[in-house]
Amino acid sequence: MALSAKVAGAGLPSFEPGWVWLVGTGPGDPGLLTLHAVNALAQADVAIYDALVNEEILDLARPGCRFEYAGKRGGKPSPKQRDITLRMIELARSGLRVLRLKGGDPFLFGRGGEEALALVEAGTPFRVVPGISAGLGGLAYAGIPLTHRDTNQAVTFLTGHDASGLVPSAIDWQAVAKGSPVIVMYMALKHIERIVDRLIEAGRALSEPAAIICNASLPDQTVHETTLEALPATVREAALQPPAIVVVGEVVRFRALLDSQVPLPSQQRIAEPAPGDASS
Amino acid sequence: MALSAKVAGAGLPSFEPGWVWLVGTGPGDPGLLTLHAVNALAQADVAIYDALVNEEILDLARPGCRFEYAGKRGGKPSPKQRDITLRMIELARSGLRVLRLKGGDPFLFGRGGEEALALVEAGTPFRVVPGISAGLGGLAYAGIPLTHRDTNQAVTFLTGHDASGLVPSAIDWQAVAKGSPVIVMYMALKHIERIVDRLIEAGRALSEPAAIICNASLPDQTVHETTLEALPATVREAALQPPAIVVVGEVVRFRALLDSQVPLPSQQRIAEPAPGDASS
Repeated sequence: MALSAKVAGAGLPSFEPGWVWLVGTGPGDPGLLTLHAVNALAQADVAIYDALVNEEILDLARPGCRFEYAGKRGGKPSPKQRDITLRMIELARSGLRVLRLKGGDPFLFGRGGEEALALVEAGTPFRVVPGISAGLGGLAYAGIPLTHRDTNQAVTFLTGHDASGLVPSAIDWQAVAKGSPVIVMYMALKHIERIVDRLIEAGRALSEPAAIICNASLPDQTVHETTLEALPATVREAALQPPAIVVVGEVVRFRALLDSQVPLPSQQRIAEPAPGDASS
Repeated sequence: MALSAKVAGAGLPSFEPGWVWLVGTGPGDPGLLTLHAVNALAQADVAIYDALVNEEILDLARPGCRFEYAGKRGGKPSPKQRDITLRMIELARSGLRVLRLKGGDPFLFGRGGEEALALVEAGTPFRVVPGISAGLGGLAYAGIPLTHRDTNQAVTFLTGHDASGLVPSAIDWQAVAKGSPVIVMYMALKHIERIVDRLIEAGRALSEPAAIICNASLPDQTVHETTLEALPATVREAALQPPAIVVVGEVVRFRALLDSQVPLPSQQRIAEPAPGDASS
């Protein structure tokens, strides 16, 4: 296959022993992996991965690569951030190529900055490879453009809970509501009612279009279109669970036009319709 | 090479004749291409690409793929958006696999929504493949995390000029300044003085850290660290040119720690230092 030869020739970097690579894997569809991510998997000695990493991606690792899971398992809490960081440092010091896989992008609500700073302190050499964040990739798979010249010249990404698990008090909701025609929220299901209250208090229209995308880019992706006011009821009635991205803004309306054609992962829709069949 | 075999086996979709794929290529480093993008290049009959697409990426296309350039060339204006769209439709109707390559991500200031809507109107089947936007990938390569739990729970992306080429009047600068601890700006060089004035009028500190990243992720990437107040002088004195990303916010300070280790494209830094050499 021509593709393979091309990738092999792309001059991707060598993963040196003793290094840690912090790599974003994107939202889940393996097709959204970057070449740098695939190249890292092909060389790693050990991969430490989060709950949001699609385990299918691990099949791309070289034979002999060890895997360590660092997410929640069966109700047990996930390992502490500090323990994960110490483990990475320990493995790197023992001379291994340590691949730290993070769902989405390490630097956008991914705690990659914290992990990188800990590696700097320990004197462990590392690199960071960006990935496609769920807020971007998930919206694309749902047929919702983040920006459109007729609707918005700005978009804000925010997290629905802070380090202590509460609605972030550092967010000026009034200002975000006024300044950001499109708001993309990570980890917002838990506090959706209070977040929606704040946006409505700040003047956002009750009827403003909104959507909730669960399992972004995966075969079991679901998209619920609703309104700002009805977001909490939608989450409750459909019993929606994380991982989810919530988006509020006029761009959601484009989905009605674009979704019939913007496909879910290819296996499901791309290969099937004959050319012309999918016209709206 | 194990990598090649893995990619070949990843079950990527077939590019059907008569379809248009709108594909983000990321900011420039070919290693930031997604597998879907590489797979699209390996099957396309014709590729229409913008000025912001790194031409090295075209080497990954299948032999026989035709290329059409749709950016500015030697001072001549770029083809009109409408002409590009009509061309895509014409090529798809003639039964070709039409690959529309866009730098960064098609749906984040990439006009992908407009192009997709035109394809819907024409009844041309298409898919959208997200890419790594320069505002995310470029910051990662510069050692600047978009979010850090100690500094910000929100980040805003905005464009520095609107469809008419002016500072976007639809942006509520006062609200953005208050609501967004970190602001990432696309196409902001031209109007940098007026944008900075608005942010300072809205209360942002003159001394707030800022950075300008040109040619994000490419071997000739440059990063200028400065302050909000000094942004216009920095752009002027260094004669900075697009493509550039401007970032304002406390996260820029992390670069002092992270940059010694977060490498530019691998050819330059990764393969060279021995393990341990790069400790801070």
